[in-house]
Amino acid sequence: MIYFDNAATTWPKPPEVLDAMRYCLEEAGANPGRSGHKLSLVAGKLVDRTRQAIADLFNISDPDRVIFTLNATDSLNMAIQGITEAGDHIITSSMEHNSVTRPLHCLGNNIEVTKIPCNQQGLINMEELSRAIRSNTKAIVITHASNVTGTIMPIKLIGELVREAGKILIVDAAQTAGILDIDVEGMKIDLLAMPGHKGLMGPTGTGVLYVGERAAFLKPFRMGGTGSKSAVAGQPDILPEKYESGTLNAVGIAGLGAGVDFIKKTGLQRIREHENRLTKAFIEGASKIQGWKMYGTSKDEVKAPVVSFLIEGKDTAALGGALDKWHDIACRAGLHCAPDAHRTIGTFETKLVRFSFSYFNKIEEVDYALKCLSDLKERDLSEFKGAGCSC
Amino acid sequence: MIYFDNAATTWPKPPEVLDAMRYCLEEAGANPGRSGHKLSLVAGKLVDRTRQAIADLFNISDPDRVIFTLNATDSLNMAIQGITEAGDHIITSSMEHNSVTRPLHCLGNNIEVTKIPCNQQGLINMEELSRAIRSNTKAIVITHASNVTGTIMPIKLIGELVREAGKILIVDAAQTAGILDIDVEGMKIDLLAMPGHKGLMGPTGTGVLYVGERAAFLKPFRMGGTGSKSAVAGQPDILPEKYESGTLNAVGIAGLGAGVDFIKKTGLQRIREHENRLTKAFIEGASKIQGWKMYGTSKDEVKAPVVSFLIEGKDTAALGGALDKWHDIACRAGLHCAPDAHRTIGTFETKLVRFSFSYFNKIEEVDYALKCLSDLKERDLSEFKGAGCSC
Repeated sequence: MIYFDNAATTWPKPPEVLDAMRYCLEEAGANPGRSGHKLSLVAGKLVDRTRQAIADLFNISDPDRVIFTLNATDSLNMAIQGITEAGDHIITSSMEHNSVTRPLHCLGNNIEVTKIPCNQQGLINMEELSRAIRSNTKAIVITHASNVTGTIMPIKLIGELVREAGKILIVDAAQTAGILDIDVEGMKIDLLAMPGHKGLMGPTGTGVLYVGERAAFLKPFRMGGTGSKSAVAGQPDILPEKYESGTLNAVGIAGLGAGVDFIKKTGLQRIREHENRLTKAFIEGASKIQGWKMYGTSKDEVKAPVVSFLIEGKDTAALGGALDKWHDIACRAGLHCAPDAHRTIGTFETKLVRFSFSYFNKIEEVDYALKCLSDLKERDLSEFKGAGCSC
Repeated sequence: MIYFDNAATTWPKPPEVLDAMRYCLEEAGANPGRSGHKLSLVAGKLVDRTRQAIADLFNISDPDRVIFTLNATDSLNMAIQGITEAGDHIITSSMEHNSVTRPLHCLGNNIEVTKIPCNQQGLINMEELSRAIRSNTKAIVITHASNVTGTIMPIKLIGELVREAGKILIVDAAQTAGILDIDVEGMKIDLLAMPGHKGLMGPTGTGVLYVGERAAFLKPFRMGGTGSKSAVAGQPDILPEKYESGTLNAVGIAGLGAGVDFIKKTGLQRIREHENRLTKAFIEGASKIQGWKMYGTSKDEVKAPVVSFLIEGKDTAALGGALDKWHDIACRAGLHCAPDAHRTIGTFETKLVRFSFSYFNKIEEVDYALKCLSDLKERDLSEFKGAGCSC
């Protein structure tokens, strides 16, 4: 089986991830930070080790600003719901995932939202962004890279603009954490949301929210037991407890730590080079297939390892279904939980097939997939209509 | 090592739990419900299997009403924040964990809260509860069993009262799911919050919220990608997607499924009998130690396998520390994230040592712990002052 659905979750994981989870579950199975006994302390140390490893990777000076969550969507809800108040103005882009657009939508008439239209490549216009900032603008919420086109937003430039305007920058790193070099200080990011189970190679059930000093007013999202300051009536105002209530996913976090260690050991540059090579080879090869059409940018310096495409005359859901059933290639056809992005690039009706690569994919897999696409182009796929699409 | 901290998280887990997690991570590693390909469908099936197993265990007729969350605290926040509106009156008890009291506290002046005082046994007075219900009362939020004293609340009676009054009943089953027989229909529970990693024997990172039909107005807590109805601007109004955004903890949920299977295979009655036997043996034995004092009820029909105590003249934190360091017994000393409960039973200042048992504890471990307590009673524990307490 060829797995090209790494933008949904990476697979396989480095073997160390399961080892770390097994160790935590079997040998250090207690509740971290909840009791003073040895087992609880061992679990607490595993969590703190991962916290430190993540802080190191993202240039976060204080590891207690690394908050563990359920997934990137949880992190984004914490950030978006936690900073907004009635009357606020929030700026976002037209390339966002539903994990950004839906929390904003559900805040309803209490806030005003400006969506900056992006171009056909999926890129934001910096001048329009600059013009959109008003006195009541609270924050800019933007993806680091689109989960449809892979287009990388100029976060450093955006960070400078937002910081100068005295606003808060929230970045959705669902497609870039563990894939691109992210420096929260250098990029002036105030709130960074990321999944643990994609580029960072951890298991599902893990997400992270970095809470920068300028976002210290962030309201807690999930209140409850923190294992410390138990007698305080409200949520204690100390980090990370303020934003971490209830039992942490210690087993998952231990696995995430092993994933982050793998990223560090391998090196972001090596990972990026490998994934770029796969992406380029696929685009070059597929461009020779008549009717194949890619959306978004093809420039590797502004592209995460995500390629969305169609073949003219072929139903995209059927293409996804046939790739799976006939050729054992797992990919994702549909709207990718990002209808705004599809509207922006003009594929809301046709939808697209998405290939997303990870460090564990091989160039031979790309070659094989290219042969399969050439084959499918010539075949009747009507039996798969709607099959490969979950939207 | 003897592990008596099962009220924080159960340990060990049945070996099938790790097997199921390994299978999900290695063989079905994809994102459930996100794509149409085989791997994603396998992951989706694992999640659905657990959903069905939980529905069966709690007499939930529609498995789509079983919502997967991060932990019980996440579930309680979803329930409490999701049902309240400005002007609402909420009733709770004086025996609650911070996972109930803090969300209520943080809702601030927007709502009114009545805490029904419980007696020394930790039991609620049904007449007072009945009298507290007003026209603007939205819900009653109550623990099924105290995490300090183990006292079991008469949920069936409360359910009848609340249903008759036309209000919503939210139950915190942190100490009872997988331990006592819970029937959401029979007990008239509208929202049931539970951890996956305690009595249900799953891994950390798993929680459940049952959303009954009468609570259909519950607002979603975490909005975002649902893998279906992607083009809808807000959160789709279908279950379970309405309350499940972002990538589910498929690996953890697979493990939870194995935990629930273990509970069903073993039988709740057999589990209850074993845990009762341990609890009774411990109470009987410890009662003979001069100065040993238990708080809350000792009647096994209204007691979960949780015993909190002190030894007069001994600092409780030091006792917890010495049990860990000298005798390798893991327990929990302190306020147990439940300061209200400690105030109710009069132990807010002294705090208590808590032993909590699971199906995997043995009677020999209880016997050994009794010997250790007799020993520690005679010794100077001053070196451990504050050691075993994390509050």
